[in-house]
Amino acid sequence: MTQPAIGDAFGEMIRDAYAVHTGVGRRPLAGGRYPRPVIEVIEREDGLINGAPAAHYLAEPDEWRSFDHRAVRLCRGRVLDIGVGAGRIAIELQRRGIAVTGLDTSAGAIEVSRDRGLRDTVLATVDEFSRASVRYDTFLLLGNNLGLLESAERAPAFLAALARLAAPGARIVAQGADPYGTTDPLHVSYHENNRARGRLGGQLRLRLRYREIATGWFDYLNCSVGELESLLAGTSWRLKSIDEQDRPYYVAVMEYTG
Amino acid sequence: MTQPAIGDAFGEMIRDAYAVHTGVGRRPLAGGRYPRPVIEVIEREDGLINGAPAAHYLAEPDEWRSFDHRAVRLCRGRVLDIGVGAGRIAIELQRRGIAVTGLDTSAGAIEVSRDRGLRDTVLATVDEFSRASVRYDTFLLLGNNLGLLESAERAPAFLAALARLAAPGARIVAQGADPYGTTDPLHVSYHENNRARGRLGGQLRLRLRYREIATGWFDYLNCSVGELESLLAGTSWRLKSIDEQDRPYYVAVMEYTG
Repeated sequence: MTQPAIGDAFGEMIRDAYAVHTGVGRRPLAGGRYPRPVIEVIEREDGLINGAPAAHYLAEPDEWRSFDHRAVRLCRGRVLDIGVGAGRIAIELQRRGIAVTGLDTSAGAIEVSRDRGLRDTVLATVDEFSRASVRYDTFLLLGNNLGLLESAERAPAFLAALARLAAPGARIVAQGADPYGTTDPLHVSYHENNRARGRLGGQLRLRLRYREIATGWFDYLNCSVGELESLLAGTSWRLKSIDEQDRPYYVAVMEYTG
Repeated sequence: MTQPAIGDAFGEMIRDAYAVHTGVGRRPLAGGRYPRPVIEVIEREDGLINGAPAAHYLAEPDEWRSFDHRAVRLCRGRVLDIGVGAGRIAIELQRRGIAVTGLDTSAGAIEVSRDRGLRDTVLATVDEFSRASVRYDTFLLLGNNLGLLESAERAPAFLAALARLAAPGARIVAQGADPYGTTDPLHVSYHENNRARGRLGGQLRLRLRYREIATGWFDYLNCSVGELESLLAGTSWRLKSIDEQDRPYYVAVMEYTG
């Protein structure tokens, strides 16, 4: 098989999902005729593949899961929404009069967020952006984006980049997923193989695919609350609170101690 | 990346789609908690990938596309439903008192069809089954299954197998899709590359993927009505009628001339 081209698969998907959502612009059609839902395809390095409708990236507040609402209520001051996607959360914060910046590494995601009215956006990694002189009071990692910690190796650098952007008393509000409740042998053995290679069990090696394009392979971390606490040790962040009402999903608040 | 294991990806998908449909049995859940729709992932040899909800395999007659209803009205006598899938069409024919056999190469598909009440099923290729002494009056190829002709090389053998199973005056009722109306450069260039290799433009080299399993690579043919007529030349079948009300989809009736 020809390998897919590497590119902004996430952005292409978000663009199409937005076109389907609004009914405007080029949309995926079956037979040039029947609308088809936009599907996000996630491939794991062990050959596992999963498709999921992309519409949730454009969910309105009344369609959000309840933990998203609880997470948003934990925002204080100036907010950086990291992995802003189609702007689902950031646009609602802006609507509520909160100063919010949307950051993403996907040009397509930033384009859609702006088109939907998000005023302050940044196309960059957190590392790149951390050289900016701006400071934030809240860093939001919703939509499972605690996963952007990636791995035990990467987490300290990611957290240090946020520390450079942190105003005194800043917090991270992050939604994670504890992967260890599963009994699915596919996942249990993946966790075991990870540990045998010295990785955290829920460290997923993934790529997104959309039509002819794939992202490069990246790590995405599903970790338990205990693992999160270990990752924070030695950083400028400490765990302040955990909301576990919707297990295995949780919302963690981490406080800046620098 | 580890390549997925080869197996009955279609059957695994149909089993899960059936569990979601009925609410009974092991179902795919996000976080072990939120139901997730079953998605069929189709990969093309050039790296293109598409996901589509699998629920249509279990669509009730009031959810069918209109050409399916028109195709079913073209059935005469004893019916062989080729690529029966989850039994969507065959179960309705049986309900109407029509003698119908469901054939599939997927053990999972046959299992689900039987579980849903389809009485007469065969797990085999048409070539294997063509050695049976039974004869049919109608061969049904719905759900785009005219594609099972595969290629100009394979079509004569497929049609000869059906001829061996054909009662006098038998017909094939097949739903196809003309691929050449598209302006999508991804598809147009695929068609051109096919022709440059001596293949029919719409000869797709595909595999299905579901979770950790993939089918082997197979050919699936989207052809124009003109191409279909060429493929029938020299076989025991001749084109009797074409219903093109829902272009690019069409329903072709082919008559046994043997």
